[in-house]
Amino acid sequence: KPMGKENDKVVVLDFWASPYCMRTKIALREKGVEFETQEEDLWNKSELLLKSNPVHKKVPVLIHEDKPISESLIQVQYIDETWTDAASFLPSDPYQRSHAKFWADFADKTISFDSGKKIWGNKKGEEQEKGKKEYLESLKVLEAELGDKTYFGGETFGYVDIALVPFYSWFYALEKCGDFSFEAECPKIVAWGKRCVVGRGSVADTLPESEKVYQQVLKLRQIFGVE
Amino acid sequence: KPMGKENDKVVVLDFWASPYCMRTKIALREKGVEFETQEEDLWNKSELLLKSNPVHKKVPVLIHEDKPISESLIQVQYIDETWTDAASFLPSDPYQRSHAKFWADFADKTISFDSGKKIWGNKKGEEQEKGKKEYLESLKVLEAELGDKTYFGGETFGYVDIALVPFYSWFYALEKCGDFSFEAECPKIVAWGKRCVVGRGSVADTLPESEKVYQQVLKLRQIFGVE
Repeated sequence: KPMGKENDKVVVLDFWASPYCMRTKIALREKGVEFETQEEDLWNKSELLLKSNPVHKKVPVLIHEDKPISESLIQVQYIDETWTDAASFLPSDPYQRSHAKFWADFADKTISFDSGKKIWGNKKGEEQEKGKKEYLESLKVLEAELGDKTYFGGETFGYVDIALVPFYSWFYALEKCGDFSFEAECPKIVAWGKRCVVGRGSVADTLPESEKVYQQVLKLRQIFGVE
Repeated sequence: KPMGKENDKVVVLDFWASPYCMRTKIALREKGVEFETQEEDLWNKSELLLKSNPVHKKVPVLIHEDKPISESLIQVQYIDETWTDAASFLPSDPYQRSHAKFWADFADKTISFDSGKKIWGNKKGEEQEKGKKEYLESLKVLEAELGDKTYFGGETFGYVDIALVPFYSWFYALEKCGDFSFEAECPKIVAWGKRCVVGRGSVADTLPESEKVYQQVLKLRQIFGVE
């Protein structure tokens, strides 16, 4: 395809604090793909967002050649399959691929916006403690899977890392709201998160400052009526 | 690989009424792969199941060359990538692939064991009506996506069909428990379900009789204390 054609344009309908949007932007940056972001007001969504993702009406939407793709992990796979010059996010061996998909799926199901919200969306008390317990139990399963590897895939930054690392930027906010320490509970995951930020430009360029996420979470607490 | 080697063996840790197990068996049959099933007692799980799927402890587990793979949709993808002589379940074009993955994901999230349980797991009343409404709303979204196509992928039976068609075998039980008609609500989906059973040996050989599923559901209602 000729470069620079108008419809080659890559657009991400984005919200800067969304871990799901971060996945897509990290994947594009890993592949060296130029893209534009269009910031959405999630309380007043654009016509383009509603038209592009009529089923879920959620960010991120990846628009490539005027065609929209929804769901962040599906976008990451699309990016991997479309820009094949750079290294693949997934191993080529089907068994190893299924292994990576399993852990990305586990991370997706257990470390989510909703599971974090059980911590920041509650005052101190029983519900918040339950949320902390669940979140940390899941993260400890991921910590055991990570073990002493550099990245989840071994020496290669890949699919599981892309799926999980955006949530690292929310750790500080969760700690402040929940009064606990990820470092104490999951030291290997915290070291891995730092390693991703330091070692991968794609991650460093995508993840927002922890303090900025915390300020956003404080706004969300006001919106959702948490003291 | 030489055929007939002991570790080439394909085993499915199975439960006959599980829609998730059906996905894996349909995929294997579509590819013409010989396999054994090992029926699990879900109230007294085998050591092999607990060892093979220590995170979720759920069926199905696909064991190939002594290596276990968990999560039914990941198994379907593994089967597709491992036995490549037969037609692929997914289109080769990345955009069309992402489209199929989107709908399989939607079906997986909205038409699930848990969403069916809101119907059969409740007596007539508000909760059951809520369950029916949610189930049918999701199924109508899928009905609109199916439209007048033969299968979700067009003329080709594929990934979305494999993900969704097992739930068709539970329709009768849901209708009996919930006192409604899928035919009246989603005629195209019902016609598609019949078409899959009639047109695909893989589906016909896998889906249990509706009456047998209903009897199982009545047992589950007893176990869960629903009158």
